[in-house]
Amino acid sequence: MKELTKVEYILDGKAKGKVKIGGWIENLRSSGGVQFFIIRDGSGTIQATIHKDNVNKETFENSENLTQESSVIIEGKVQEDDRAPDGYEIEIEKLKILQIADEYPLGKKEHGIDFLLSNRHLWLRSPSQRSVLKIRTTIIKSAIDFLDDLGFSRVDTPILTPTCCEDSTTLFETKFPGGKAYLAQSGQLYSEAAIASLGQVYCFGPTFRAEKSHTPKHLAEFWMLEPEMAFYDFEDNIGVQEGLITAIVKNTLRKNKRELKILGRDTKKLEKIKPPFPRISYKEAIELLQENDFDIKYLDDFGAPQERFISKQFEKPIIIHRFPTKIKAFYMEPDPKDPKLTLSNDIIAPEGYGEIIGGSQRISDPKVLKKRIQEFGLKKENYEWYLDLRKYGTVPHSGFGMGLERVVMWICDTGNIRQTIPFPRTMGRMEP
Amino acid sequence: MKELTKVEYILDGKAKGKVKIGGWIENLRSSGGVQFFIIRDGSGTIQATIHKDNVNKETFENSENLTQESSVIIEGKVQEDDRAPDGYEIEIEKLKILQIADEYPLGKKEHGIDFLLSNRHLWLRSPSQRSVLKIRTTIIKSAIDFLDDLGFSRVDTPILTPTCCEDSTTLFETKFPGGKAYLAQSGQLYSEAAIASLGQVYCFGPTFRAEKSHTPKHLAEFWMLEPEMAFYDFEDNIGVQEGLITAIVKNTLRKNKRELKILGRDTKKLEKIKPPFPRISYKEAIELLQENDFDIKYLDDFGAPQERFISKQFEKPIIIHRFPTKIKAFYMEPDPKDPKLTLSNDIIAPEGYGEIIGGSQRISDPKVLKKRIQEFGLKKENYEWYLDLRKYGTVPHSGFGMGLERVVMWICDTGNIRQTIPFPRTMGRMEP
Repeated sequence: MKELTKVEYILDGKAKGKVKIGGWIENLRSSGGVQFFIIRDGSGTIQATIHKDNVNKETFENSENLTQESSVIIEGKVQEDDRAPDGYEIEIEKLKILQIADEYPLGKKEHGIDFLLSNRHLWLRSPSQRSVLKIRTTIIKSAIDFLDDLGFSRVDTPILTPTCCEDSTTLFETKFPGGKAYLAQSGQLYSEAAIASLGQVYCFGPTFRAEKSHTPKHLAEFWMLEPEMAFYDFEDNIGVQEGLITAIVKNTLRKNKRELKILGRDTKKLEKIKPPFPRISYKEAIELLQENDFDIKYLDDFGAPQERFISKQFEKPIIIHRFPTKIKAFYMEPDPKDPKLTLSNDIIAPEGYGEIIGGSQRISDPKVLKKRIQEFGLKKENYEWYLDLRKYGTVPHSGFGMGLERVVMWICDTGNIRQTIPFPRTMGRMEP
Repeated sequence: MKELTKVEYILDGKAKGKVKIGGWIENLRSSGGVQFFIIRDGSGTIQATIHKDNVNKETFENSENLTQESSVIIEGKVQEDDRAPDGYEIEIEKLKILQIADEYPLGKKEHGIDFLLSNRHLWLRSPSQRSVLKIRTTIIKSAIDFLDDLGFSRVDTPILTPTCCEDSTTLFETKFPGGKAYLAQSGQLYSEAAIASLGQVYCFGPTFRAEKSHTPKHLAEFWMLEPEMAFYDFEDNIGVQEGLITAIVKNTLRKNKRELKILGRDTKKLEKIKPPFPRISYKEAIELLQENDFDIKYLDDFGAPQERFISKQFEKPIIIHRFPTKIKAFYMEPDPKDPKLTLSNDIIAPEGYGEIIGGSQRISDPKVLKKRIQEFGLKKENYEWYLDLRKYGTVPHSGFGMGLERVVMWICDTGNIRQTIPFPRTMGRMEP
């Protein structure tokens, strides 16, 4: 309805005088002849009051029937008021009740995570969940704008794929006439085809992993941003990664002050995120962990406790680079200084939030790539078209993947990945 | 490599003097002591020449070995030249050959669509396919920017879902511990949950339809943009649709002049796309078709020939509104003036390109919604959480879905939907 004013405009000081707002009663209390409401309209929340003496009897009586999550349209005057949560409140003059809500299942008392997840369709309304989703929106928009400004084209890579990129034991499978298709775990190989057409590209979409482990820490469906760039080497690749993370943090700090406050986020820590990010090699990281009594040896993968320890040594995201060939994907370019290493890097978020980015320069030499496919025990026939890319004008190129939910988790400083996506899917839950 | 200049900058007149470019030989010919190349770097293509007299013998001989799609890095001087395809050319001084390409399978001669689709990873490089993907990028970016400017939040709705939104016969199915999951055909119901949290939201992602018909005209995997807005009625909803389509067309005309030219698109037709769009009711459309000898009766769906006929009566997208309840989805708000009709609308693209948008106001009254679920023979237990949304502060709201590939097809004026997405999936093809 065009005559409605957004709460956000009022809080930003852009709407004064009489306003009309449509929204939900997020909270309510009464004191003497005054009813206090917190009204949520999707753009924000604002305090609204109704005074017995200022309205007719019927309006006040109606207001006494309101319950949490009832839907209303109110008209009234915007007033600056230092006592109101955001400095403004509305003195209600007219009240139109759209619906008196049934008793809200997610009322005042504390609820367990299972109950909240079963009611995810309602839980989304809570201040914390709303704030996380607004920040998620900013993170996505910032990433897209950042890549667009650099001239990237968008390439929506397929979800239904004939083969897998890496781990075949965690694939979702579906039937299809004449065969089976698998839900993609990455769009990278497809993006590598597109760079010869478009130079710099990215894909951004859902990816799927049927984790056997059933842990609630892993999502079965999560979003990945995967840039891929022709004529970008290892260092250029890291430059894009640093720029991307920095742009995301900067925009969130600028656009989501209210949401970060609701989440109780220590923004001072985010203000420190500026390039260059500190770097350590995989080898140095292993040594650092060994010196600090971690039971880890060369060629081991980092587990969550190890990542957490490393991340706590720094105030910025940490670049861990040059992983050994043996523990990384087949397509990673060997380090010319030591071919047992790859020109690869991860980025670990600070504050113990683990890996947010993994990337590398890709092998451009067809002979090296063929050999690597063999060494990794992969079927060459599954990679025929991928090998074509090295036959018809191969070029140095690089790319990386950013796990969206990991970044949301870090920036929101929320411990549970199931709060970072609107409707989380784990191997234990596909509902609602 | 940071020292490379983008071809686009040169064509835009932003790079003069000496430049270094990395790219592929898209085309080549020789004439006397001069070699002419069209070099593609992903941002654009430019003519580059190498004169026998201007370079050393080895460089010229090397240049004679180049083949289509060979990869190179060239250095040379930018020259304005009216005879060059885009007004600029480069006089090559240094040539670094990265790879002499094998004979390119998609060379000069014409190829059938099956061969091209089997080589989609290479076909993407062709001027037409590259142009379509650049325009697709603009369309997506414009849509996201348009909604962001209006204050929409992004809500990534799940792909793995326990039930279906509409047609259960065209679902892709996958196993999951303790049950089955289906690939989503729409995010709408989830977005309806999110509006009570965020006001105006959109989802944008892949959707799936296992069409039994096997026709190459339908994609099994396609992208949908689905905005959903609290407190927006039928008219507000149409306003957003008109604004969105107009923004997309305007941005494409501004940003993709070169690509539209490559595709031979008649841009005069696109320049006419401004709101308001013409409207006819479903009933009027049926009458118009009957008057023009179509064998169609009230309550029939429009087929492709009918949509084409209607679209050709107008120079702008056409809004067809108020479809009968019986032939539309269960969740559509009845028209208060005639409850046998819904407050729904489609938008048909001009030039015969068919439906690009379908939307409606949604039922907000819980009683009406329950009745409708029953009438449509749907299982109430599958819609418990959806009915919750009408229990806890129901509000008038509306939304719509825009089929991305349909819009790309129309704006690019390309007859084949398989050219509108990087790696098309049909029921007859999941490769490469």
